[in-house]
Amino acid sequence: MATGTLPLVFSRHKVPLTLYLFIYMGLLHCQQFIIPFKAPSDCRAEQFFDISSLSCVSCGPNQRRSTTGLSCVCQTGYQTLTTDKMSITCQQCPIDKPAVTKDGFGCIRCPGAVSDEGNCKCPPGSFLVERDINGNLLDEARCETCNGDSPASTVPSSSGDRCERCQASFIDTSCECKSPNILAGGLCFRPGSLSTNVNPSVNYAQLKFSIQSAWFLENLYSSSAACLVFSNLTACQALGNMCVMNMHSFSGVSTDACGLFNTIFRSKASLSSTQDISYWRANLPWLYYGDEPGLASRVLQTDPVPTGFSFRGTKKNTDIRLLAAVYNVRGEFLRWEPVGGKNLQLCPQPATKQAAAFSFGTAYQESCDLSVAELLGSHPEPLFYDVFMDLGGGENPKLLPLPTLVLNQQYSGRFINQESMRNWYLSRRMFLIDMLSGREKSLSSLPKVIRVASSVKIRFQLVPRTQEGQVFPPLMVVTYRDVPITDINTQTVSTSFAVEYEMDQSEARMKTDTALGVMGGVAVLYSLLKTVSWKRRISSTDVDGVTLVKFLFFYAGDLANVFFIVTVGTGLYWLIFYKAQQFVSVLLPLPPQEEKLVTYVGCAFALKAVQFLHKLFIQVSVDVFLIDWERPRSKTSRTVQAAGEMKREPSPVSIWRTYFVANEWNEIQTIRKISPTFQIMAVLFFLEVLGFSSLALRDPWTTLQRPSEAYTPSYSLTLRYGLAATLWLCIGLLQVIFFTVFYEHFVEDKIRQFVDLCSISNISVLLLSHRCFGYYIHGRSVHGHADTNMEEMNNNLRREQESLCGQRGLLPNTDIQTFQVALSNLLRMQYDRIQDSISRRNRPSRLTDTTMGHFSEPQCKAYHTMNHFLASVIDHMRPTPSVMCCFTETRPRC
Amino acid sequence: MATGTLPLVFSRHKVPLTLYLFIYMGLLHCQQFIIPFKAPSDCRAEQFFDISSLSCVSCGPNQRRSTTGLSCVCQTGYQTLTTDKMSITCQQCPIDKPAVTKDGFGCIRCPGAVSDEGNCKCPPGSFLVERDINGNLLDEARCETCNGDSPASTVPSSSGDRCERCQASFIDTSCECKSPNILAGGLCFRPGSLSTNVNPSVNYAQLKFSIQSAWFLENLYSSSAACLVFSNLTACQALGNMCVMNMHSFSGVSTDACGLFNTIFRSKASLSSTQDISYWRANLPWLYYGDEPGLASRVLQTDPVPTGFSFRGTKKNTDIRLLAAVYNVRGEFLRWEPVGGKNLQLCPQPATKQAAAFSFGTAYQESCDLSVAELLGSHPEPLFYDVFMDLGGGENPKLLPLPTLVLNQQYSGRFINQESMRNWYLSRRMFLIDMLSGREKSLSSLPKVIRVASSVKIRFQLVPRTQEGQVFPPLMVVTYRDVPITDINTQTVSTSFAVEYEMDQSEARMKTDTALGVMGGVAVLYSLLKTVSWKRRISSTDVDGVTLVKFLFFYAGDLANVFFIVTVGTGLYWLIFYKAQQFVSVLLPLPPQEEKLVTYVGCAFALKAVQFLHKLFIQVSVDVFLIDWERPRSKTSRTVQAAGEMKREPSPVSIWRTYFVANEWNEIQTIRKISPTFQIMAVLFFLEVLGFSSLALRDPWTTLQRPSEAYTPSYSLTLRYGLAATLWLCIGLLQVIFFTVFYEHFVEDKIRQFVDLCSISNISVLLLSHRCFGYYIHGRSVHGHADTNMEEMNNNLRREQESLCGQRGLLPNTDIQTFQVALSNLLRMQYDRIQDSISRRNRPSRLTDTTMGHFSEPQCKAYHTMNHFLASVIDHMRPTPSVMCCFTETRPRC
Repeated sequence: MATGTLPLVFSRHKVPLTLYLFIYMGLLHCQQFIIPFKAPSDCRAEQFFDISSLSCVSCGPNQRRSTTGLSCVCQTGYQTLTTDKMSITCQQCPIDKPAVTKDGFGCIRCPGAVSDEGNCKCPPGSFLVERDINGNLLDEARCETCNGDSPASTVPSSSGDRCERCQASFIDTSCECKSPNILAGGLCFRPGSLSTNVNPSVNYAQLKFSIQSAWFLENLYSSSAACLVFSNLTACQALGNMCVMNMHSFSGVSTDACGLFNTIFRSKASLSSTQDISYWRANLPWLYYGDEPGLASRVLQTDPVPTGFSFRGTKKNTDIRLLAAVYNVRGEFLRWEPVGGKNLQLCPQPATKQAAAFSFGTAYQESCDLSVAELLGSHPEPLFYDVFMDLGGGENPKLLPLPTLVLNQQYSGRFINQESMRNWYLSRRMFLIDMLSGREKSLSSLPKVIRVASSVKIRFQLVPRTQEGQVFPPLMVVTYRDVPITDINTQTVSTSFAVEYEMDQSEARMKTDTALGVMGGVAVLYSLLKTVSWKRRISSTDVDGVTLVKFLFFYAGDLANVFFIVTVGTGLYWLIFYKAQQFVSVLLPLPPQEEKLVTYVGCAFALKAVQFLHKLFIQVSVDVFLIDWERPRSKTSRTVQAAGEMKREPSPVSIWRTYFVANEWNEIQTIRKISPTFQIMAVLFFLEVLGFSSLALRDPWTTLQRPSEAYTPSYSLTLRYGLAATLWLCIGLLQVIFFTVFYEHFVEDKIRQFVDLCSISNISVLLLSHRCFGYYIHGRSVHGHADTNMEEMNNNLRREQESLCGQRGLLPNTDIQTFQVALSNLLRMQYDRIQDSISRRNRPSRLTDTTMGHFSEPQCKAYHTMNHFLASVIDHMRPTPSVMCCFTETRPRC
Repeated sequence: MATGTLPLVFSRHKVPLTLYLFIYMGLLHCQQFIIPFKAPSDCRAEQFFDISSLSCVSCGPNQRRSTTGLSCVCQTGYQTLTTDKMSITCQQCPIDKPAVTKDGFGCIRCPGAVSDEGNCKCPPGSFLVERDINGNLLDEARCETCNGDSPASTVPSSSGDRCERCQASFIDTSCECKSPNILAGGLCFRPGSLSTNVNPSVNYAQLKFSIQSAWFLENLYSSSAACLVFSNLTACQALGNMCVMNMHSFSGVSTDACGLFNTIFRSKASLSSTQDISYWRANLPWLYYGDEPGLASRVLQTDPVPTGFSFRGTKKNTDIRLLAAVYNVRGEFLRWEPVGGKNLQLCPQPATKQAAAFSFGTAYQESCDLSVAELLGSHPEPLFYDVFMDLGGGENPKLLPLPTLVLNQQYSGRFINQESMRNWYLSRRMFLIDMLSGREKSLSSLPKVIRVASSVKIRFQLVPRTQEGQVFPPLMVVTYRDVPITDINTQTVSTSFAVEYEMDQSEARMKTDTALGVMGGVAVLYSLLKTVSWKRRISSTDVDGVTLVKFLFFYAGDLANVFFIVTVGTGLYWLIFYKAQQFVSVLLPLPPQEEKLVTYVGCAFALKAVQFLHKLFIQVSVDVFLIDWERPRSKTSRTVQAAGEMKREPSPVSIWRTYFVANEWNEIQTIRKISPTFQIMAVLFFLEVLGFSSLALRDPWTTLQRPSEAYTPSYSLTLRYGLAATLWLCIGLLQVIFFTVFYEHFVEDKIRQFVDLCSISNISVLLLSHRCFGYYIHGRSVHGHADTNMEEMNNNLRREQESLCGQRGLLPNTDIQTFQVALSNLLRMQYDRIQDSISRRNRPSRLTDTTMGHFSEPQCKAYHTMNHFLASVIDHMRPTPSVMCCFTETRPRC
């Protein structure tokens, strides 16, 4: 530790050991320094709250607590004396000067009564004078009155210690508002200008009651009158604000705030309108657009905003600059305020997140619950916002007023703004929190009801077919909510702020439907073609129910593909065109506009499931026969046949090659050209690790990794589907290419291996997928025999390697071993006849394999017959079109 | 639309068609109502800003803009007349009354000069009187002075229109602070009480400069003197606050704020201390704990807080209730404030998220960048917080003061609080934003430097071995940052708030190390055992280098398992004990405490990799031989042998059974008891879809799905590892159980199928994994021949099914077909001799398969020899311990 001679409290070089020990013992006793909790209000009347020790300390004699509770003052009737310049003592005033001066330091005689606080009291209309003009204390205080007559025209000032000029509206003869003049809101009105019969109630339609608002009671008449009579600017604004607090609603009577506003509006029709806007009358605030039917769509969908938005490039422009003229409830203009940050976004969020709301193209949505008690502290009075869009313009900046749609607005009882756009009645000016109009008795009482803008939404609509990112004037949609106050400390209100972008999707929808229609038609043709092909392959010509069902199955599969292509195409279209555009020309479909896509995807899945079942059925009903070309060896040694005994025992042809081929055939049934584990891991890697998933967010940016402090918009269903499907398909395609181009050429090709195996084992495979159509792998060994020992096999292979024997193909001097087969009807009937005897037990189920897996004697015979029959058919017939067709290198489909 | 007769502006039932058309045409012309943007400051001097039309409008004649710019006032020298009660006109004052009264409505003669604004001006020390006591305007204004002598003792009031009593410290003879008295901060001090030589500079150690602070210059001396001389409570607090603004630092001189504080502290040693706390002197704020070495650990780690925390159950208590006494910079006590929400957490976040900071056990961390310009608006003056913990206690609530560690605190140049805990110098009171002390010239100038609490951290430490959730007094760690102001509009400062929970991990670490030691020892023994077994199996006895290397390989594998078990155990321990505890008894390790775990996991992976390579090497070096029991058929017909010609051509034994078995053997090499795709999908499903991943968050809750508005703490590495590993192991285990119990019994068991195949194909498999040790599958057909056609195979199977033939086991009348084999050294040498001739080409590589895959003649011979040799060994020898050991149903390891 430091060894300097610092003026420290317990610098251990200065404190004697005993004190040190004492402190240490004290520490052990004090047990963590726990202290009792006292608040200023906990102290008794003769105590004050010591802000140093945070405890209650007694005042001196004849003293009592001050109003703050943090110091002591003298009791009533005692004057204050300072001793030692700081602490005070109190002394009783003498009997001839029983009252204490207002500053507390002197005693004085009163002209009249003494107040409860021990000061002198003057009658109303006069004020107390205790000192002369130079500050000398008088022996007896005086009560003076102000001369209200012109030209003095004075009244006592608010502080009550001098006279000052009275308000201008009073000055006629004196500072009194004599009957029949009307005194309202501190102003004096001549009678007859406006009926005093006004309706100062606020109607809470959601709660089905209305209350007499203290604010309206005090200010509605005076504002209206001052606006009408004196054209007072702030009074007109205050009246407008009261109409806004009523949510722009007209009730049946014309004496409420909006009714009065309109009365005045009409009375000023002769005056020129402001800024050439006919709905904005001079001296009045602009509250309403007109109510002609269809005006809303003309305002919102006729002329685009002059500036265009662009996502990238040199002309990048994504800033939405909104500006609000802010008025307080008394109608005073406070300031121009850029919208963003604290004003319209009530939910507390870091500034970087809140700023995202005003970046064009980013779907923004925030909502939260706010404590009513905190709102009462932060928003005791409502603020009113006239929102404009800043169009820029260098030296002469221009503003575009944003029309507002108040969803709660009533028009003689109807919620017209919740109806179709034709009936909308647009307005201007909004507030967020109104804690004022719901106060019933006085302005300082707790509000009975508060009104909160529970949802503020700014909606941008793109101009159809724009190439320059032009939008129509954005619309603000405001929903207010009335919250009755029950328990102010625990109550919360929810509020949300959103920015939405939409474009007319009818064209895109039409294109989708067109694509669906065209491709659906092509699918019909394709399915018909398949059906015809199928009919040909089963050698049938009559169109019956089975054909129709078959056609429907084919069509289900094709239609599933069409739906899939269309939906993936749609997703990919949005992904590419939305994310990559420079000038804004498309905007994402909103969730309600995505419903059709969901339906299409559902259709694709359902139809694909049908196709899958159909495929499964076809695959399990394929006929497979393995033709063994091997002939018993003993046949070749004809000399032995002479010995009749031996005839019974020709060396049998081993069945093991057939077993081997059948086993391998089974195994190649489930070969895939992709690895599912790799596929899943790769897609997840791209989506989650490399962050491709953030491409599906509802904003125009293509950044993959977003910083945690940035705003994260919601996901777009369309983009998500498009992205995931595309990624899956691409990775699948890459895998297929890898397996086809690299793996099968350089590592192993299971199909080719199987064909090799057939050749080596001297076994051909005949697959009949349809009645008269199938596939054939020619596996006749070029060596004549395959059922032999290792030496001969090796010799055979060596001979083949050294090209000492013929080629493997079915036709002489060819290599072609795989064929498509078309059977004639006659041939098939022969086949069926032979098969009838073995078909019953041809496919024993796996579970009963060990107990049932052997043929009866006649079945074995049938097997040999079939083997002979097929071998002779293949061996003796040349492949003619009527019986067998050969296609180069055709693989059996697995 | 409504058809009522409402007083609407454009109610279409009232507006004549022409007007309607006119409006419509106007609408077409107005083009979206674009208006020019004007701010009050844009208007010229003779214009005012019309708050209704938001444009600049000209004032009347002789008028000019008022200071706000929102209305017009008369020019200098013109009096205001009201006409029509609202609008004003201006009239020049007559020559004999050239000045305008202060209210602007009258003209008056001046006693002295006329000010620039056209009002009368009085010399300093006097004030202007324009009206008599009753409000009548005087013809000529008067300048009056206040009587400063006792007993009047008055000075002009701040509004400058009357006399009022002067400050108490002046009152000696008159209201003047005559030399040698010292006037400072509005107080008058007698000389000698405190040297006026004070150092009003603020030192910015991070920026390496200090500035003369306007606030300190104005208030440091007066606060110190008032505190010392008058014991003024607010002055003492103000002095303390200045010390806090200096970050509690002592520089070398004793005349800075903290030096003065300590001088006064020492001078008041005779007074009793406050609340029985020796560091808290009466009238002074409590700023420091003592600086004895080791006091910090005594304060922080001796006595637990009386209340315990509990996560669940009836006594659930997770609320951390902190309370702060808030003072302003002038030393006034403002209020008691519950900590939470706005005060210490500067980052804007929804209330629900911020509240999570004070839920015990939730690791809380928030940070953000704040705009300096906004801070200047919201925090023009610093607030000072004395933070306490509210211990509850019903009627007599208790408070526990929280010690604060200011990391920037200097003690004669050393940052002692960044050193070890022994040197810490704890303090009290903190601020968040200080925009005041960095103002150099005046209090209204922009600050040159601001000081921000860039990091506030509350650290809880658990009492070791507590069962009742007891903690030591929490510590607040504060780091201040000095930010020089360059561009106030774009600058940001980052700030963070965190709550941390830690416990002494030495015990847990010791337990881990113990487990590691014990299991490591067991692993040594186990590896030794393996090495001995391996030595026995290769029939070697001498301990050489190879043995040592082998031991190390074994040990690597075992040690990897030990590391894995210990780390997973640790993770699981924390997962269970932290998340499931009722009374808090353990807290998660902090990230720095997790380093050891990371090391262990790394070790486990590295060692496992070594083991894996070793295993791979062992597996590829296994000797496999397929013994064909089949004898040529022609042998049986001995009569044929007589014909010498035939002898050369006995029907060969087909090699296809051997091929088949070899092929199947290859295929069962990669059998797993789990499906990797299912494993990955299942783990992902649990973690991400069911939300198990939220169990790894640093909070005590076990909720799986968290609402989006709730605070999400960071992930704990330990919990994540434990959770993921456990989940992976559990799902893997379930899969293994499923495959073992269900799949292998009811669907298929590939190994058993292989053994069956061996039996049916009359082929035995001998695997020599070591020199003298291996495995044997006895596959001798019970029918003598297997190389036969389908009929005979079927007959054989039927006979076996009907139990007409012997059992398959090697020993008569047994079923046991799989064995472990121990070879004698002699046997092995024979084996090696035969193998030498074929070993060179025994394993051709796959890629060269087609060109190299056949034996030479001598190799074929050697194959037959080996076949004979092994067949005879197995056939003729009884399995005796010296040659061959039989274990029941032992499976070859794959």
